[in-house]
Amino acid sequence: MDISKHDQEFIKKKNKNMVLDIIKSSRPISRAKIAKLTSMSATSVGRIVNDLCQIGLVKETEQYSSGVGRKATMLDIDAGSVLTIGVEMDKGVIKIGIVDFDGHIIAENKLTKLYHLDDPVKVARELSEYIQELIDHNEIVISKIIGIGIGVPGIIDMDKGTIVFSSQLGWENVNFAALVESHLHIPTVIDNDLKVKALGETYYGFVKGSKRAVLLGFGSGVGSALVIDGTVYRGESNIAGEIGHSTVDPNGMLCECGKRGCLQTYIADFTIIQEANKVKPITSIKEIFDSAHNNETWAVQIIDRACTYIAITVSNVVCMYNPDTIILGGHLIEQHVEMLETVKQKINQFIWGPFNGTYKLVSSKLQSNAVIIGAATLALQQRLDHEM
Amino acid sequence: MDISKHDQEFIKKKNKNMVLDIIKSSRPISRAKIAKLTSMSATSVGRIVNDLCQIGLVKETEQYSSGVGRKATMLDIDAGSVLTIGVEMDKGVIKIGIVDFDGHIIAENKLTKLYHLDDPVKVARELSEYIQELIDHNEIVISKIIGIGIGVPGIIDMDKGTIVFSSQLGWENVNFAALVESHLHIPTVIDNDLKVKALGETYYGFVKGSKRAVLLGFGSGVGSALVIDGTVYRGESNIAGEIGHSTVDPNGMLCECGKRGCLQTYIADFTIIQEANKVKPITSIKEIFDSAHNNETWAVQIIDRACTYIAITVSNVVCMYNPDTIILGGHLIEQHVEMLETVKQKINQFIWGPFNGTYKLVSSKLQSNAVIIGAATLALQQRLDHEM
Repeated sequence: MDISKHDQEFIKKKNKNMVLDIIKSSRPISRAKIAKLTSMSATSVGRIVNDLCQIGLVKETEQYSSGVGRKATMLDIDAGSVLTIGVEMDKGVIKIGIVDFDGHIIAENKLTKLYHLDDPVKVARELSEYIQELIDHNEIVISKIIGIGIGVPGIIDMDKGTIVFSSQLGWENVNFAALVESHLHIPTVIDNDLKVKALGETYYGFVKGSKRAVLLGFGSGVGSALVIDGTVYRGESNIAGEIGHSTVDPNGMLCECGKRGCLQTYIADFTIIQEANKVKPITSIKEIFDSAHNNETWAVQIIDRACTYIAITVSNVVCMYNPDTIILGGHLIEQHVEMLETVKQKINQFIWGPFNGTYKLVSSKLQSNAVIIGAATLALQQRLDHEM
Repeated sequence: MDISKHDQEFIKKKNKNMVLDIIKSSRPISRAKIAKLTSMSATSVGRIVNDLCQIGLVKETEQYSSGVGRKATMLDIDAGSVLTIGVEMDKGVIKIGIVDFDGHIIAENKLTKLYHLDDPVKVARELSEYIQELIDHNEIVISKIIGIGIGVPGIIDMDKGTIVFSSQLGWENVNFAALVESHLHIPTVIDNDLKVKALGETYYGFVKGSKRAVLLGFGSGVGSALVIDGTVYRGESNIAGEIGHSTVDPNGMLCECGKRGCLQTYIADFTIIQEANKVKPITSIKEIFDSAHNNETWAVQIIDRACTYIAITVSNVVCMYNPDTIILGGHLIEQHVEMLETVKQKINQFIWGPFNGTYKLVSSKLQSNAVIIGAATLALQQRLDHEM
């Protein structure tokens, strides 16, 4: 039995990421030091460093004398030399950002109007035009852009670049990455919005350096994403963490998916609004909060129940993932920060004793930029994984 | 900023495991081939191989001529040269097995009587005596035994070797690994029983080679364990997967933990028996199954509801982990295999569409030996990780 090609690829990828991580964390550093730290041969380190220099991520800097009078060329990261583009797509909005290696958005744009949702081909063309405009307007050297990442609510086959199903966009089986690539000729990756958001928060948010962070999103749906050691845990088919359709009560309300008592029938924003409409005609969550601030009992009740189910969700996710950090995100929370305190208090009712003190509960740091930055981060990761 | 000692240790461990994995999968193989496959320097490969030979896991075999007439010494695994001991401890029973590198139990013993549960010091002494007896009786060369692994129901601090809390044993904060080590002077590791069971099933059960397997245990409690690429996912404090105390219904029954509506109040065996006692005096699950086979409505109802909650649990765990395999274990299932079919049928009511076909549902292969084999496997993993 021989070692498989797949395993060899895996080892190569691991070695490459290890070298890049060491340069990032210990810059400036010499090739010889990297070889020593990794136990790799000088030849292999040299090859990987050359690849990283060619992409533009790594640059040679001044020579340092090391040890007995010899000089070694040092390696450093060149944050501005490589850019990726992050895109957030949702029902009513497309947001685009050009992001550098340090996770800073150096240019951005937002589209809310000219958007033909019924036709993915048209959307891809429009999106590509707007990306091109953003590049031109900011006089970005196009060769610096090594990838595009797109975050979309729904089930995404990242390997194929396909939106398998997005109820928000109303799309099924659309190879959207290929459509965008056909216009811009830049490697494009597409993923679930919560997963890239979690990636962004882990790299550049409050939880930078966390070993096991979970992002919970409460908005038009309910979802979670786990990031282990800087990599999104995807599961078998990239739908790990899809808790919106976990069963809370087998005799509960019917969900749009056809099952009874799914978590999202208790907490997604449209179900909250639906419930409010039993009392008065309401079209937004904000109106419910306004009524609650006026001490209208029905509104206080609805928000209290929402906080209860958010607290239960946090508790149950903690049971499964035992994370060091939970990031509460999604517009239901981000636009109503007063919920956070209530949720924190309620969690004490539901969390099992041994989990007390094992995790931090934080809000999103990147907030409305999280998907853009996360998608750009994914594009960079992908490029490093596949193109070297 | 310099690379941390922790990161260096991590890289060393990764390299070592990589070399062992390659020898396991591609034996016989030469040092030079390993260096080529891993990009490691010849010196580093040599050092790691020497360590593995010293432990006894790897042996040199015949010389093969490779390429232009040169000869290379080949490396192979020596499955019988290294043994570990696996122990399963539960309320009424201790089981001990001596396990070889291929996961075979070559000698075993079971204790059900002389067991002073109230005193961990006595239990450790008795256990050690029985291990010694098993070794002596089977004329095992003691130097071959490189580690002991113990699986215990409860919350275990594996790093410290401590049973933090085990309601089954009634113990709190007992450094049991150190107690056993003080008698036998063999490195001893202790872990949660479900976690080691999952490890055993992944290495030697039906799901050998699975990338993401989840073991679900239904018995005196309810729990789950996720194994990603051969390593147990532990979370921040080794309590990932403790779903027994996730909240199913905030207004549900009071649980022994003091919270309301925990999953285990619906499905653990003592709660099922408690419920049955509303109808008639029952002391075992078996009696309920017997009554169900006689078509007594109450028993049919109870078992039907148990199957419903097992199906919901499977569905909810699939939502979180998106595994390739779910192994149903625990004595409630293992002793009543007829439940499996009912559970399979019920899952269709609860599983969200996109998860259909993403996972296999299997029963435990190792069954009553799973904890022993898994604990022995953990002892081997630990020895490789820490002692080299």
